[in-house]
Amino acid sequence: MTFHIGLLIFPDITQLDLAGPYEVFAKFPDVEIHLIWKDLAPITAGGGMQMLPNTTIAQCPQLDLICVPGGSGMNPLLNDLEVLDFIRRQAKGVRFLTSVCTGSLVLGAAGLLTGKRAACHWMSREMLSAFGAIPVADRVVVDGNIITGGGVTAGIDFAFVVAAQAFGEDVAKAIQLAIEYNPKPPFDAGDPERAGPELVAKTRAKSAKRQAERQAAVDRAARRLREGV
Amino acid sequence: MTFHIGLLIFPDITQLDLAGPYEVFAKFPDVEIHLIWKDLAPITAGGGMQMLPNTTIAQCPQLDLICVPGGSGMNPLLNDLEVLDFIRRQAKGVRFLTSVCTGSLVLGAAGLLTGKRAACHWMSREMLSAFGAIPVADRVVVDGNIITGGGVTAGIDFAFVVAAQAFGEDVAKAIQLAIEYNPKPPFDAGDPERAGPELVAKTRAKSAKRQAERQAAVDRAARRLREGV
Repeated sequence: MTFHIGLLIFPDITQLDLAGPYEVFAKFPDVEIHLIWKDLAPITAGGGMQMLPNTTIAQCPQLDLICVPGGSGMNPLLNDLEVLDFIRRQAKGVRFLTSVCTGSLVLGAAGLLTGKRAACHWMSREMLSAFGAIPVADRVVVDGNIITGGGVTAGIDFAFVVAAQAFGEDVAKAIQLAIEYNPKPPFDAGDPERAGPELVAKTRAKSAKRQAERQAAVDRAARRLREGV
Repeated sequence: MTFHIGLLIFPDITQLDLAGPYEVFAKFPDVEIHLIWKDLAPITAGGGMQMLPNTTIAQCPQLDLICVPGGSGMNPLLNDLEVLDFIRRQAKGVRFLTSVCTGSLVLGAAGLLTGKRAACHWMSREMLSAFGAIPVADRVVVDGNIITGGGVTAGIDFAFVVAAQAFGEDVAKAIQLAIEYNPKPPFDAGDPERAGPELVAKTRAKSAKRQAERQAAVDRAARRLREGV
């Protein structure tokens, strides 16, 4: 039986949020990967890379796993009813409901994380609370059939957890060897604690505008969820 | 001054070889990234993802950094004179000559690694010797202005070494924090030593056909280099 995986792609997605898990998922036994957007025109990711969706929200079959990546372009999705309805509809039939990076905020905005533990990019993690989710500062968080990854590169660690749950540890390890995933970062600044307060403050300052827009979108989405409008 | 980076893309590229460094490179200050192929039609990566080149071999300006990723589709590049001539031409003017995964074999086939230390995916690493290069079992190998990364995910470690050399450690660390690169693989099978002989043998067996074709292409390219034909 083919395992159907769907990854949402959208304008200004962080392409590595998608590309990391994609490489792992593509090596699953008997898998079909759907890159889903509203239409089939090329989308432009953050940084400028152009990728092609291969199915639409309207035509996507029931998935076994749905994954929502993140990126600046995730902000408008928080109040995009077509996208949120699609995820909710899929969520009823999937084995695994998943996200990478700020994609967990979209799951939250769809009302799917109430009372659930979830990961997110460190800079936006606390925003999960607005949706009744419990933010967790881990690379990968598993809560029932909900598996969420932290920021960007955490998507690779996330994908191996998914691989093991869906196909067993042996399959996960074979893929790890194939993509030589034995990381050795040359520097040690990969999370706020390691990077230190000065670099964290600078990074927050640079992202202030996007984060303010995100907070506004989160507030609006949370109000919609609460009031059922 | 804009820093021009060119990444070769080609049919059946391993998309994560490209996507890892791309995410890091895209965050360099004042950078322009060229995704280069013979024409601008969408290319299909390993796994099926379709991406769009944004420039052609004929139209690409002189780069500051050229990077050749790897993947099954790299095999035909080893004897593709149009591609090899392009890389050789660019190599004369770049600040950094680079590759990820089996892309180093293409640099070798272009005659650019003679006497140089280089990384490669573990399964194809020894093939570098055919081009007079010195295979090194590291994630990232720096030899003068030649920086090469090991298999697939090593491209991320590689990109941070490049970031530090081109723009300094502070820039590299800021990007590391932004993409939360504090990897925590859930399993420990990311290189042949850790994976153990049984999994290594199985992985080699599954890739035997592609590796035999690669060896034949390497032999042909090495003969061409030696005999100047």
